[in-house]
Amino acid sequence: MLYSFTNDYSEGCHPNILQRLTETNTQQQAGYGNDAFSLESVAAIKAICAQPDLDVHLVAGGTLANLIVLSAFLKTYESVIAAETGHINNHEAGAIEATGHKIETVATPDGKLSPELIRPLLNKFPEYHTVKPRIVYISNSTEIGTIYKKQELTDLYAFCQENNLLLFMDGARLAMALSAERNDLTLADVAALTDIFYLGATKSGGLIGEAIVICNASLRKDFKYYIKQRGALLAKGRLFGIQFAELLRDNLMFHLAGHANAMAQKIARQLQELGYSFLTQSETNQIFPILPDAFIAQLSKNYGFFVWRKMPGEVSAIRLITSWATPEKQVDQFLQEVKNLSAVAKQELS
Amino acid sequence: MLYSFTNDYSEGCHPNILQRLTETNTQQQAGYGNDAFSLESVAAIKAICAQPDLDVHLVAGGTLANLIVLSAFLKTYESVIAAETGHINNHEAGAIEATGHKIETVATPDGKLSPELIRPLLNKFPEYHTVKPRIVYISNSTEIGTIYKKQELTDLYAFCQENNLLLFMDGARLAMALSAERNDLTLADVAALTDIFYLGATKSGGLIGEAIVICNASLRKDFKYYIKQRGALLAKGRLFGIQFAELLRDNLMFHLAGHANAMAQKIARQLQELGYSFLTQSETNQIFPILPDAFIAQLSKNYGFFVWRKMPGEVSAIRLITSWATPEKQVDQFLQEVKNLSAVAKQELS
Amino acid sequence: MLYSFTNDYSEGCHPNILQRLTETNTQQQAGYGNDAFSLESVAAIKAICAQPDLDVHLVAGGTLANLIVLSAFLKTYESVIAAETGHINNHEAGAIEATGHKIETVATPDGKLSPELIRPLLNKFPEYHTVKPRIVYISNSTEIGTIYKKQELTDLYAFCQENNLLLFMDGARLAMALSAERNDLTLADVAALTDIFYLGATKSGGLIGEAIVICNASLRKDFKYYIKQRGALLAKGRLFGIQFAELLRDNLMFHLAGHANAMAQKIARQLQELGYSFLTQSETNQIFPILPDAFIAQLSKNYGFFVWRKMPGEVSAIRLITSWATPEKQVDQFLQEVKNLSAVAKQELS
Amino acid sequence: MLYSFTNDYSEGCHPNILQRLTETNTQQQAGYGNDAFSLESVAAIKAICAQPDLDVHLVAGGTLANLIVLSAFLKTYESVIAAETGHINNHEAGAIEATGHKIETVATPDGKLSPELIRPLLNKFPEYHTVKPRIVYISNSTEIGTIYKKQELTDLYAFCQENNLLLFMDGARLAMALSAERNDLTLADVAALTDIFYLGATKSGGLIGEAIVICNASLRKDFKYYIKQRGALLAKGRLFGIQFAELLRDNLMFHLAGHANAMAQKIARQLQELGYSFLTQSETNQIFPILPDAFIAQLSKNYGFFVWRKMPGEVSAIRLITSWATPEKQVDQFLQEVKNLSAVAKQELS
Repeated sequence: MLYSFTNDYSEGCHPNILQRLTETNTQQQAGYGNDAFSLESVAAIKAICAQPDLDVHLVAGGTLANLIVLSAFLKTYESVIAAETGHINNHEAGAIEATGHKIETVATPDGKLSPELIRPLLNKFPEYHTVKPRIVYISNSTEIGTIYKKQELTDLYAFCQENNLLLFMDGARLAMALSAERNDLTLADVAALTDIFYLGATKSGGLIGEAIVICNASLRKDFKYYIKQRGALLAKGRLFGIQFAELLRDNLMFHLAGHANAMAQKIARQLQELGYSFLTQSETNQIFPILPDAFIAQLSKNYGFFVWRKMPGEVSAIRLITSWATPEKQVDQFLQEVKNLSAVAKQELS
Repeated sequence: MLYSFTNDYSEGCHPNILQRLTETNTQQQAGYGNDAFSLESVAAIKAICAQPDLDVHLVAGGTLANLIVLSAFLKTYESVIAAETGHINNHEAGAIEATGHKIETVATPDGKLSPELIRPLLNKFPEYHTVKPRIVYISNSTEIGTIYKKQELTDLYAFCQENNLLLFMDGARLAMALSAERNDLTLADVAALTDIFYLGATKSGGLIGEAIVICNASLRKDFKYYIKQRGALLAKGRLFGIQFAELLRDNLMFHLAGHANAMAQKIARQLQELGYSFLTQSETNQIFPILPDAFIAQLSKNYGFFVWRKMPGEVSAIRLITSWATPEKQVDQFLQEVKNLSAVAKQELS
Repeated sequence: MLYSFTNDYSEGCHPNILQRLTETNTQQQAGYGNDAFSLESVAAIKAICAQPDLDVHLVAGGTLANLIVLSAFLKTYESVIAAETGHINNHEAGAIEATGHKIETVATPDGKLSPELIRPLLNKFPEYHTVKPRIVYISNSTEIGTIYKKQELTDLYAFCQENNLLLFMDGARLAMALSAERNDLTLADVAALTDIFYLGATKSGGLIGEAIVICNASLRKDFKYYIKQRGALLAKGRLFGIQFAELLRDNLMFHLAGHANAMAQKIARQLQELGYSFLTQSETNQIFPILPDAFIAQLSKNYGFFVWRKMPGEVSAIRLITSWATPEKQVDQFLQEVKNLSAVAKQELS
Repeated sequence: MLYSFTNDYSEGCHPNILQRLTETNTQQQAGYGNDAFSLESVAAIKAICAQPDLDVHLVAGGTLANLIVLSAFLKTYESVIAAETGHINNHEAGAIEATGHKIETVATPDGKLSPELIRPLLNKFPEYHTVKPRIVYISNSTEIGTIYKKQELTDLYAFCQENNLLLFMDGARLAMALSAERNDLTLADVAALTDIFYLGATKSGGLIGEAIVICNASLRKDFKYYIKQRGALLAKGRLFGIQFAELLRDNLMFHLAGHANAMAQKIARQLQELGYSFLTQSETNQIFPILPDAFIAQLSKNYGFFVWRKMPGEVSAIRLITSWATPEKQVDQFLQEVKNLSAVAKQELS
């Protein structure tokens, strides 16, 4: 295989992280997130968000972040509202339900939620026979590559506040969202327009780590108990701390995410020029082009990717993901192969 | 502060790990534990255990390993039996109960369980009004530094099998146990004499990682679902894989654990020669000497450690832990300070 | 108010139950379901089902029965498949999720499930990232009044068995289903074509009680632990025992359910003759006629019922429920009022 | 068998309950606790407690009451403190842990808790590695027949309030406690000196039902959701309502409980006069006399009771329980048999 576009976690991490790990390896540091590097990364996040009193906690992965946050802030009879395509609904093996909570889902074509989509879930009868919605879960970028614009997030957060709902953003790919071409949100905006969010390192140049940021001051008490109880309080927290300390220095993670976006969007543009359509209007590093099945079979000899959905008429949507480490050379080579296949296909048709 | 004896996770990791991470950093690898390094470490564990069909799963930490294993193998009405001093009972913020299970505890002076201690919990009346014990949880080395001898483990496992109980060993410090002077167990023995155990990297020279080993073939089906559901399936599993691949090469982790033991036992021997007694008869890298309070106050100016328990007569037990990275020079310096203080104390008494 | 058609649990119970409670009141009986009356009712159910080795357990209500059964037979990563309209999905305040399990729902116009509707949920990718379906939950009669025919249940059970799925029937209104005019199922058929079902007393002439019947022998072990653990093991089990002992004597509960059906269907037929349509094609004791809003406002002065769904064009579907105790006189009076209102409405239109 | 002293739920209920059930049977009533009888009993409890704004909820049994209350008021990382002999610790099949919470136990010779016994559990280190105690669970009367005096409860509640702990009283046998000879508490005192308690009907003359009383106003919001979610919201709430409406009229339940106490204490006094000792100093309707094994074997031919604990020297403690319905004639007959056996035994000894 020449290259895999299967996911954005196939490579290791940005070399700065390995260098810092090596340089500081013999220093004795406090455990459980009280090490100097974790404190450094917490300070960096507060500075970028321009909010000095945020709470920041580093954990290993996205599912862990989701289940800790949701189980911490939901009473047993309260539910979380999510898009049908939401990661918590589809790809976490029932992790949220395992903590005792119902996910109420909304069908949404672009993977995003809005006040209009949520409102019908708030009017149920009769009281106490149904769950009571309390948290709205959104992903940015979404599971299908789309992003929230500032006005959309502003409206959604206002709606949540009017309706006693907390807004929680899954930011496993937040760096990609904030680095997308049409994006108009900053990390400080996200901190101002959500109650809780997390910022992922794993898919943006780190080996491991998601930084949970608790913006809403009323939610901060005793949060570390939840982390410990779910097995997420790492003894050597320095490992997490160094990821974020390095990735946040000079906005490194956003530059890396920008590269990932650029690679996917380059592929997207050229496929579009070749006349292919897409399952979703992605603006980030995962795209879902619809290609002829015969064509997909050829491509898969040299390239790794998921066949996402079989569609009518001998075509399928595939998922191509680029990463912070994807070489542009590989992208160009892939595009050349696509063009060759496409030319052959057109010849055959004519 | 000159040196901290507070825990065995203050330092980073053995340099081989960082070197391998660096060398392999740009390789594209499969996610979720299917990378070449995880497969290499799984093969190494099978080889050391001399059992080719074990199931091995790598997760981030001990609490995570404990809660995944126990919630996977207990029905909702089944309980786990543990020593009162067991980590799951005291230091996991209710992680096991949060998955829905009762821990039934047994008082035991040396932190170890035996058939005699467990038997009374099996005879309850009346049926179905009480929980039903199903798993016996032991730690080796224990939370107070003691270890299981081969005959003890053999007897305990036979008892478990006779009574339809599963035996699960918490091996966060298994490398220390197997490297203790009086130890007569091998890792292959552990695999033959338990249903499930795990082998910890974090405290034996790694940055992160515990290897869960499922010895009992009837327990292997679908285990990865449990890992995913608890948020423990890491995207970049290569990080875990490299820890174990390196630490198991040429028995590195056992040599490192042996060093940690040697440092603590050196301190223990000299304190004993100075006439001090101990709270527990540790054979590994954590010791609990009982020292005069005034003396402790002096020591704490230059050294880090926990004051474990205030005791009658102006003395306290402290906990001193050494690690794979503890320099013998620091140990000697510490011992020198102890001797000086001890000499002064004796002068004052006389 | 002249009469309430709001639900089928407004009245007390069949007088035979009160009489038996009174006659046997001073007898000393064993607790927790070991009393003579519980044993009598268990024997009656086994006889009707023509299966001498069924396990039968009596509990207080339907939500309790659902959560006990589902949490007993699902591993933590396994899900239950239900119709979107299923009681467990909508009207149990998240009771199933509170025990840790995901409900996967299927949209279905008639409230019923079939192999065709379930099959798409069985083909997910990738393994261990999603929950694994294990139980299919159906209600008979359904939450919208429809019933399963014998062929439908036979096909569904065969499909379940082929796909390693358990079939569980919520029978809160099973007596109504089995007493419906077009029904061709017997209780023995239900016992032969499901793994677990329950038979409700509350809505079929009893004060309290659902009888959980475990047909699949592999599921019987230790079931009473689950009942106890969920708080459902009643000290004075005689109360449940007498409900079923009396309601099963001479098929009393099926006669009572047949009366409830007859009353609702009488209303349905006459509304149909008057030209009104229905939201669902109910065959049992709950019907959902669509009536003009003005008309509904008039009716609600004298009669109790739910306005189920506002619909386009100044009409709404209402829910009318009749019970084992609904006097035919009340039904006739109600129908007379409907006819009068209808005549007025038609005059106004002309 | 002549008579069973095995428990206090062998008989049915006070005839007034059956009479009221019969008289009101055909009335249509609202469901889910909104019926006239439930409202009547709620009003009665408020009046007796002299607190017009208490929240009162009726549920089927004690384990259900315990698990609903504890899971409602504990965050996931908070624990409940109980006596080792506490019902929730021993006889509920892990019901509390199944809702995700740890029970921290205290050894106590008389089954009661005090500030002195609880204080050590409040000082743990290090923070967030252990559970955080939040509720103190006590039973009155206790599981071994003892009762709380007003001063004890006052001191305990003051301690709880100083330490941010909620006080919850399991009152499955509260009527017995409040009817004991040495008791100096009223129900109004209990309402003033606890945050939540419940008052049991099952063991005090009812067929079913425990009344959960939420005294602490801050705990009342949305409580009915918890009841529904645990399957405890009964459709025909009239059944519960009538139990309490009748048992609270003219203090009926306390008179009945007083009878139960008097019968047990009569036995206790005479056994004491015959020279026998007791395992616990019960003041209520369950006593634990220590009798020769041979003697117990004889008694068990005609009487039902539990052999509670085998003791050294061919004696055992048995548990004798009397109920609201125990005929004094049966007690006298039993005592006569004891005297006869005792006389024979003494003759044999001499």
